[in-house]
Amino acid sequence: MDVSFWKVAQRYSVIFFDSYGVLKNSQGALDGVPDMLKRLTESGRRFFVITNDASRPPEDMAALYNKIAGFELVPGWRIVTSGTLCSEFLREKVRSGEVAYLGKPSSAHYITQAGLTAVPLAEARDHHDLKALVLLDDEGFDWFADLNRAINLVRHKHLPVVVGNTDLTYPVSTQNVAVAVGGLARMMETILGSHFICFGKPDAMMFTHTFGMAVSENPTLRRRDVLMVGDTLHTDILGANKFGIDTMLVLSGNTQPDRADVMIRSSGIVPTYVCDSVLT
Amino acid sequence: MDVSFWKVAQRYSVIFFDSYGVLKNSQGALDGVPDMLKRLTESGRRFFVITNDASRPPEDMAALYNKIAGFELVPGWRIVTSGTLCSEFLREKVRSGEVAYLGKPSSAHYITQAGLTAVPLAEARDHHDLKALVLLDDEGFDWFADLNRAINLVRHKHLPVVVGNTDLTYPVSTQNVAVAVGGLARMMETILGSHFICFGKPDAMMFTHTFGMAVSENPTLRRRDVLMVGDTLHTDILGANKFGIDTMLVLSGNTQPDRADVMIRSSGIVPTYVCDSVLT
Amino acid sequence: MDVSFWKVAQRYSVIFFDSYGVLKNSQGALDGVPDMLKRLTESGRRFFVITNDASRPPEDMAALYNKIAGFELVPGWRIVTSGTLCSEFLREKVRSGEVAYLGKPSSAHYITQAGLTAVPLAEARDHHDLKALVLLDDEGFDWFADLNRAINLVRHKHLPVVVGNTDLTYPVSTQNVAVAVGGLARMMETILGSHFICFGKPDAMMFTHTFGMAVSENPTLRRRDVLMVGDTLHTDILGANKFGIDTMLVLSGNTQPDRADVMIRSSGIVPTYVCDSVLT
Amino acid sequence: MDVSFWKVAQRYSVIFFDSYGVLKNSQGALDGVPDMLKRLTESGRRFFVITNDASRPPEDMAALYNKIAGFELVPGWRIVTSGTLCSEFLREKVRSGEVAYLGKPSSAHYITQAGLTAVPLAEARDHHDLKALVLLDDEGFDWFADLNRAINLVRHKHLPVVVGNTDLTYPVSTQNVAVAVGGLARMMETILGSHFICFGKPDAMMFTHTFGMAVSENPTLRRRDVLMVGDTLHTDILGANKFGIDTMLVLSGNTQPDRADVMIRSSGIVPTYVCDSVLT
Repeated sequence: MDVSFWKVAQRYSVIFFDSYGVLKNSQGALDGVPDMLKRLTESGRRFFVITNDASRPPEDMAALYNKIAGFELVPGWRIVTSGTLCSEFLREKVRSGEVAYLGKPSSAHYITQAGLTAVPLAEARDHHDLKALVLLDDEGFDWFADLNRAINLVRHKHLPVVVGNTDLTYPVSTQNVAVAVGGLARMMETILGSHFICFGKPDAMMFTHTFGMAVSENPTLRRRDVLMVGDTLHTDILGANKFGIDTMLVLSGNTQPDRADVMIRSSGIVPTYVCDSVLT
Repeated sequence: MDVSFWKVAQRYSVIFFDSYGVLKNSQGALDGVPDMLKRLTESGRRFFVITNDASRPPEDMAALYNKIAGFELVPGWRIVTSGTLCSEFLREKVRSGEVAYLGKPSSAHYITQAGLTAVPLAEARDHHDLKALVLLDDEGFDWFADLNRAINLVRHKHLPVVVGNTDLTYPVSTQNVAVAVGGLARMMETILGSHFICFGKPDAMMFTHTFGMAVSENPTLRRRDVLMVGDTLHTDILGANKFGIDTMLVLSGNTQPDRADVMIRSSGIVPTYVCDSVLT
Repeated sequence: MDVSFWKVAQRYSVIFFDSYGVLKNSQGALDGVPDMLKRLTESGRRFFVITNDASRPPEDMAALYNKIAGFELVPGWRIVTSGTLCSEFLREKVRSGEVAYLGKPSSAHYITQAGLTAVPLAEARDHHDLKALVLLDDEGFDWFADLNRAINLVRHKHLPVVVGNTDLTYPVSTQNVAVAVGGLARMMETILGSHFICFGKPDAMMFTHTFGMAVSENPTLRRRDVLMVGDTLHTDILGANKFGIDTMLVLSGNTQPDRADVMIRSSGIVPTYVCDSVLT
Repeated sequence: MDVSFWKVAQRYSVIFFDSYGVLKNSQGALDGVPDMLKRLTESGRRFFVITNDASRPPEDMAALYNKIAGFELVPGWRIVTSGTLCSEFLREKVRSGEVAYLGKPSSAHYITQAGLTAVPLAEARDHHDLKALVLLDDEGFDWFADLNRAINLVRHKHLPVVVGNTDLTYPVSTQNVAVAVGGLARMMETILGSHFICFGKPDAMMFTHTFGMAVSENPTLRRRDVLMVGDTLHTDILGANKFGIDTMLVLSGNTQPDRADVMIRSSGIVPTYVCDSVLT
């Protein structure tokens, strides 16, 4: 556990960071993170943020760091969200037309960006020729009315269902969590007995996509030049291990320091490094 | 499929009926059912209704038939609900004190009947010394606020969670279903990684309990003298088969006539008889 | 943890014991256990052993204690095995004919005792009119040949499959486990997408059956007069809690003393008492 | 269903084929398939075979078609197996040393090709410093002895486990299936409560990898220029849909013509086209 993030980072040319629990928490960016990202960039390294979140556009998420830094420290395109993959899917496979969605209005960005028309599920009417149902966020709709409506819609119309975040929960304070849209999607899949098209870590597509962007910047980049830093074994570490890159578990978020060892052994998900935080 | 319920029933002394899809539907009691129950009783047979429902007291459910019959055709105690077992558990294991619940006020019957104090989860405060959380019904609370509250309550206090209905959905019309409290409970179990104490078919306790009551009426009764009639393979037929009594699948509810055969073969859940409805 | 089994036992009139990890281990009966059972009986208490095991008849299992005691300390009928319930199911529901089985010859006891003819799966031929397939034990057959044969048999003939032990593994030494027939059954269910009829703790039928026997001995017995003692949260404690009797977790088997607390909190399965062993 | 494969194929520049049930069956290559592949190539199209199989090298699989054609119709590198991804993972993440494996000797190709030393699990001894356990094939070892050995090895040493085929079963004749190594791996994961690193459709990595190879041949290739043809909804169609390419379900294998429609609707996995076979 006495490994220093900064020392380890010197061995890699590109760092992938998870966001929540690594770079920020419910209070905002961790003190020292903007400075660390600046130093990392100055040392010639490149970084990307990979996050399971489709609640708002990457640019809005980047603003958190850029406002503190006073300049564009984190360009929006360096943040790869599960919504980004959702958007890419809609563009490639659905292509055009209207899709119903569950989520806040800001989450509809991932639909309109793909050239489709976003209709809040509560406003979807029979005259709409819906191409898909997209689950983006746990807020912005009435759970009782709209989850029941969504289930019956899928039962009757056999629409493809696309899910922009596979997480079951997300933290809302140091003590409390909230059900994420991935948790609601899992319940709907169980009830319907069907398979949704879900995007988010640990799925390898998140890493494939980001690695592709890193290779665009540096065509000679190899997988062994990349380090994934995350706070969650079952998403960050499992997915990046499978994609074939080195991994660092930090203990500043989901994984409690006194339980890390037991969790690594019992899950069989082994990070290359374990470290207190990215500020070491 | 050309078996007649009435002919088969002659071979048994006690009939267990599922309720929804067998004796009633979303419009109320099926035409002819009160008459059939009356004839059954007159022929010296006894019957019980076994239903996954903890939304209101058995007496309220019995009123549906009694109002049509004009006399107490179905005494409340002949209806065994999943709430009944829930209530028995609370009396035996929790015994006294306050428990928080999710459900309509009428569902709290199953808590107060056990001698405990029922507190709607939304009104539970830190000064309450809660002994358990009881999930009884999908209505009567705010899903977003109260499901998140319930999850955090269990994470912090490690309360036992008791579930009064294992069904994932229930029908609300000929076309539509709604998520039942069992579906919400399943989502919470997945998120928390923990085991709730769940009551309802196909669990054998529903059948053990009812068989015990039938034996009280007729001490020489054997399992082979009892027939379970239901419309759902995975609850009514699976559970009664395992309990060791004969089973009849009726096609007046959940199981569509043209799919019954495929579903029986692919599930491996084989009823003793298949029949159109209890009115044959 | 400073609770003494013996002191707690004074408050109950009947004790249900799990076998492995509680009364015995891979070396045989724990030193002092026959003496404890003798004292328990002399104090006027009654006991039953409830075990997930269908590999041989209860009488064979009882011999372990009776040989040490020098008299019939544990009558075979005081041992309720998952095989016992399997046998009862075969008698009530299958009633007669030939059934194929997987397991050692001694496990076939549970088939022949029910009045049926047991055919080892490897010897089942087309001329056999099989009524069911029964999985009793992980030994006594060729896994590769016979598991594949079993899967194809069920796919073609849609036989009901009965499983005499729900455990995934069992201990074979202080260090090692072996896959139990319940683990093989689970794999077959996943592959076939179907539901087997499985017997064993935590299913409440194990407790219902044993409680029924205890009531036969003492008709005024109430659930709160019974204590279940086991070493495994997910079988012994979960099942007995749900059945509505008090529970004691002992730390002499599956549950390691230093992890008991974390496991209780994370599983939500809370025993009434925790205690080092039945020898305290 | 009256769509012709050949007509649809004209709209795409690259075709991805599943192998079993599409190009071949238990008797060998389907009559007419070598000819179709030849015509496809002559028309300027490129194809790849994507198969869940790590039992032997791609070159051995290609020989089936090349022998009939009399020339190298299918170069080995055009066959992407789940073993290929397994091999890539071992090279990137494990890098060197000894790994134990379950499978036929021919399956060890995927280990040695990555520059590692393959030790059959049955021969692994304490002096071996194993880096991983790799499950490649369901044959070539003693299920009873070696599956139990594998489970205890992982319990004691916390080795990463890599699985070269996610399928639960594979067909061995027109009537029968056999448990695939993916089915055995799933049982081990359930028993150990841990996560293995599994390769195979529907995982998007199979498609990402193959698409990368196709782009190497034709740098201007877009996803919408590629068609995936498969016989299984839950692997071929689900995975390719998610990856964002068009899909064709053929009814010459796993999916029976009279059930295709029901399966598509109940699973929610919708192919772009449905067609009798690749010979239409």
